[in-house]
Amino acid sequence: MDYTPAVPHISLPEGLPGITSGFAFRPATAKPMRELAEVLLRGPNSLTSAEREMIAAFVSSRNDCQFCQLSHSAAAAHHQSGRYDVVDAVKRDYESAPISSKLKALLAIAAKVQQGGLLVTASDVERARSEGATDVEIHDAVLIAAAFCMFNRYVDGLATFTPADPKDYDQMGRRMAHEGYVPPAA
Amino acid sequence: MDYTPAVPHISLPEGLPGITSGFAFRPATAKPMRELAEVLLRGPNSLTSAEREMIAAFVSSRNDCQFCQLSHSAAAAHHQSGRYDVVDAVKRDYESAPISSKLKALLAIAAKVQQGGLLVTASDVERARSEGATDVEIHDAVLIAAAFCMFNRYVDGLATFTPADPKDYDQMGRRMAHEGYVPPAA
Repeated sequence: MDYTPAVPHISLPEGLPGITSGFAFRPATAKPMRELAEVLLRGPNSLTSAEREMIAAFVSSRNDCQFCQLSHSAAAAHHQSGRYDVVDAVKRDYESAPISSKLKALLAIAAKVQQGGLLVTASDVERARSEGATDVEIHDAVLIAAAFCMFNRYVDGLATFTPADPKDYDQMGRRMAHEGYVPPAA
Repeated sequence: MDYTPAVPHISLPEGLPGITSGFAFRPATAKPMRELAEVLLRGPNSLTSAEREMIAAFVSSRNDCQFCQLSHSAAAAHHQSGRYDVVDAVKRDYESAPISSKLKALLAIAAKVQQGGLLVTASDVERARSEGATDVEIHDAVLIAAAFCMFNRYVDGLATFTPADPKDYDQMGRRMAHEGYVPPAA
């Protein structure tokens, strides 16, 4: 992994990491993108935020987006007592990770969506349902995976600044987990 | 191309085409997704809506998402006096299509983003800038391409209903072009 900061492709505000520079550059598109992240990752749900952040980190890892995978890994860890080891296991090999069978089945769907929506099969969905996943949980796994195919491409397609220090991501993850994705109204 | 309607993977409301069934199933995520489409494709911009819808249709075509590519092709046509031929030329080979050199350069960036954000190079961006593209236009080309990597995966990852009749898309495209993506408040 190469953490050398890229030179952004456009004149993004300096000193802001990753997606936050794109958000500052274009507030009109930032607003719905932030709201979508908030609903998907922190809104009311039978999936925990830790589970949803692990799907986000996993997809971002498969898309090789360092900023998103490190920040959402940190958010996932902060939702589950700092258990970075669980997140790392999911990214390495989710089928052997110490997570529920239901989450493994949802990650299998997310892995397909990351490659392309048409790859998801009825048997992928049947597996998730047999492990107890609801239709909303299946929907949200598909949409979290799809949304991170957007966020990841946005972050890397603009060549936003990727911090090098792991401590930066731990701090970001703490804020993402506890304060969320929508800034308080001014 | 196979237009046979798939059986949706989850219990989506019947009779609604493509993404609209996912939106009806999950209003909380529909709201920011609709707002993002509205800002990106119909919001104030130095790119015309026809140009932005052609980027959307082009990326959807590369992602093999029939519902999105047909509906956004129709929207693009309805923004430019029904010129489906221009949209078709863009999808077939944008470098030879009857469009501006600036839009060709933005489509080249969108084509990279569709594959992965890390593929966009400084020379791709330099080409767009030398053809007169502003930083906001480059930003929006990246984000439209990224967003359709989400919308396309969402539509196909749920196996939503894909209408078979071209006339259905022409009607949808007319509504998308003239009424937009955010339903009027009830």
